Amino acid sequence: MMDQSDFPAPRMGEPYLLTPGPLTTAAEVKEAMQRDWGSWDGDFRAMTAEMNRRLLAMAGATRDAWTCVPMQGSGSFAVEAMLGSLVPRDGKVLVLANGAYGQRAAQTLRYLGRAHQVINKGDYLPPRGPEVAAALDADPAITHVVAIHCETSSGILNPIEEIAEVVAARGRKLLIDSMSAFGAIPLEVGAIEFEALVSSANKCIEGVPGFGFVIARKAALEAAAGNSHSLALDLHAQWAHMEKTGQWRYTPPTHVVAAFLKALEMHAAEGGVAARGARYFDNRDVMVAGMRAQGFETLLADRWLSPIIVTFFNPADPAFEFDRFYELMKAEGFIIYPGKLTVVDSFRIGCIGRMDAAVMRRAVAAVARALKVMGVTDAAPPPKALEERARLAA
Amino acid sequence: MMDQSDFPAPRMGEPYLLTPGPLTTAAEVKEAMQRDWGSWDGDFRAMTAEMNRRLLAMAGATRDAWTCVPMQGSGSFAVEAMLGSLVPRDGKVLVLANGAYGQRAAQTLRYLGRAHQVINKGDYLPPRGPEVAAALDADPAITHVVAIHCETSSGILNPIEEIAEVVAARGRKLLIDSMSAFGAIPLEVGAIEFEALVSSANKCIEGVPGFGFVIARKAALEAAAGNSHSLALDLHAQWAHMEKTGQWRYTPPTHVVAAFLKALEMHAAEGGVAARGARYFDNRDVMVAGMRAQGFETLLADRWLSPIIVTFFNPADPAFEFDRFYELMKAEGFIIYPGKLTVVDSFRIGCIGRMDAAVMRRAVAAVARALKVMGVTDAAPPPKALEERARLAA
Ligand SMILES: Cc1ncc(COP(=O)(O)O)c(C=O)c1O
Ligand SMILES: Cc1ncc(COP(=O)(O)O)c(C=O)c1O
Repeated sequence: MMDQSDFPAPRMGEPYLLTPGPLTTAAEVKEAMQRDWGSWDGDFRAMTAEMNRRLLAMAGATRDAWTCVPMQGSGSFAVEAMLGSLVPRDGKVLVLANGAYGQRAAQTLRYLGRAHQVINKGDYLPPRGPEVAAALDADPAITHVVAIHCETSSGILNPIEEIAEVVAARGRKLLIDSMSAFGAIPLEVGAIEFEALVSSANKCIEGVPGFGFVIARKAALEAAAGNSHSLALDLHAQWAHMEKTGQWRYTPPTHVVAAFLKALEMHAAEGGVAARGARYFDNRDVMVAGMRAQGFETLLADRWLSPIIVTFFNPADPAFEFDRFYELMKAEGFIIYPGKLTVVDSFRIGCIGRMDAAVMRRAVAAVARALKVMGVTDAAPPPKALEERARLAA
Repeated sequence: MMDQSDFPAPRMGEPYLLTPGPLTTAAEVKEAMQRDWGSWDGDFRAMTAEMNRRLLAMAGATRDAWTCVPMQGSGSFAVEAMLGSLVPRDGKVLVLANGAYGQRAAQTLRYLGRAHQVINKGDYLPPRGPEVAAALDADPAITHVVAIHCETSSGILNPIEEIAEVVAARGRKLLIDSMSAFGAIPLEVGAIEFEALVSSANKCIEGVPGFGFVIARKAALEAAAGNSHSLALDLHAQWAHMEKTGQWRYTPPTHVVAAFLKALEMHAAEGGVAARGARYFDNRDVMVAGMRAQGFETLLADRWLSPIIVTFFNPADPAFEFDRFYELMKAEGFIIYPGKLTVVDSFRIGCIGRMDAAVMRRAVAAVARALKVMGVTDAAPPPKALEERARLAA
């Protein structure tokens, strides 16, 4: 009866995390944390080197012109390290925002006192090439553009190729927050022109949280000395130290690194970015179809849906209560995610982590049972949500 | 024949880490990382609350006037968060430095552009009450004093009570870097007057690396809004978010937190700070006696030796080579630590982590075998090291 997943289920009593990181990781990844490593020791240095090598290869980048610099902390720490270190103090940044993470990049620049301008597309729509081109043409002071690859707050997959093209054509530098996309959506040095990208251990590569990393042009790092507002987040200093000693500048999260290295091996064994992306697309398609069959509506039009996470409007039915729904889903073995929109009520279901379409089918069946328990007969959203969507997407 | 430790040994092939963090942790601590937690979920929020509660209790602090704020990243990130958030932009800091971590605090303040002055005692000597008093009396602009509790680069245990007394008497605020001491050396709110202390997961509480924490007066955090130079390292924002939601502001290192919670339970089960400290003192005494019996000399006079880590001069014997010694010790199952002194060659042996005197006796025996293999017959340091020590300690 029950759909058989290709992957072993989490241990007894442990739910699947249908969330965009921390996510469900393989048992092998967690097993890699079962020993202690000396951070100064040659064995750990070799692990760091191997990690950087694999990440560069994933971006199609060669070691002569590119470098990978890990940074302790959550993904936001790595984003701030990238912005504070690679944008010179007299630089100016154009931020392309369509959700919480674009807004956070702008907020970071406010803290840093770096000049910036924001194109704010609200929650629903991607920034497009022509408007980026217009903004760049209008302000020659802009040196850098920050784009969010997958805006995880809505799940929108932004048109990064189109953006990269107009930025490159105008001689500006593109910094990509690919936190929730790198490893599942192709982002290669040869195909897209950019200065640096940032991602983290606990997203599509399916490691556990504890650090992020920046893949950047070596020339950008060489030019970054003295830019940083922060000692801990000084990407140039981290890079220079690592180049010289093979070590992280300050204590690395050794266990998290060991787990990530195992996750990288498993990523390669699965077939790399293409295979990982294909599995996530499959997860998404199965899940979205199953949800729509129950009356749920996605926030986004199909063409902008990412295979990372999908936002659904809350049902209009007054019998629907998110907190109850969350607990019912948890009791069924699935952790879902609240929405992060400003205007209408919503929730999110992630498609990433160690699971496949069979698991997503079970999640969809769990949703149906939860609705039944709550007495929700139709999962359709309130008309105002759909009107809002239509109006803003016009 | 072989000394029996009270603790199970690391798994086959895994060495003891005689290093000041990352260190050897209990199997139970690592086992706590064998599941994935949703960071938004109530279960994880409860874990965060429990962690903060236990840490406050360890500092003898009550929740009405004190608060504990964890910060992602290594310990240096938490130090920077404390300095950048608790020292107002027009504040002035007196840094008491006698090694690498005091220097790093000063370097952090340089990045932040905060006015500061440094009392630099070199590698050997503690800052004493009278000189701190004189510096404070001479400069009324000084608002804060930064002291390093155990300066891990030499292993010196600084006289924190004496320092706290003169700082309090002059109405200044004391910020303590107790990274490598908290949890093993008493540091209680009722006994010592201070504004905030900082420590991390992978030191005397014997967790794995991935975050630090600041225990601070609530009033200090309330007054800290708008001080921070960094979004990610804004301790006030982290605190305010956690107070409101029970969650970490950005993705927490969930597995590392779970491990730390287990480490906190084991710390309490062992008998808290007193028992943990007693074990480390015992480790140190056994190890130092065994090393001295072979001719090794400690950098520090006995009264300043911490139970955390001990610095030994390299033997004068030309047959001694640190790299060889390191590899021989590793082959024996012990990872040691290079020195961090500027003037003379040295190495360090840590006393902290999941091990007891029986393990230290084995480490000492391994040192003897390593010396024998290298052909070192006398481990006495060069006369110049001892002269230097005598001169500077005068
Ligand atoms: C696109 C994007 N940027 C930045 C972040 C911030 O990462 P973290 O929560 O690890 O700080 C996230 C987290 O989900 C993200 O999805
Ligand atoms: C006293 C002291 N301060 C600060 C630090 C920095 O901590 P981390 O290496 O985790 O950044 C250490 C690390 O050993 C320390 O011992």
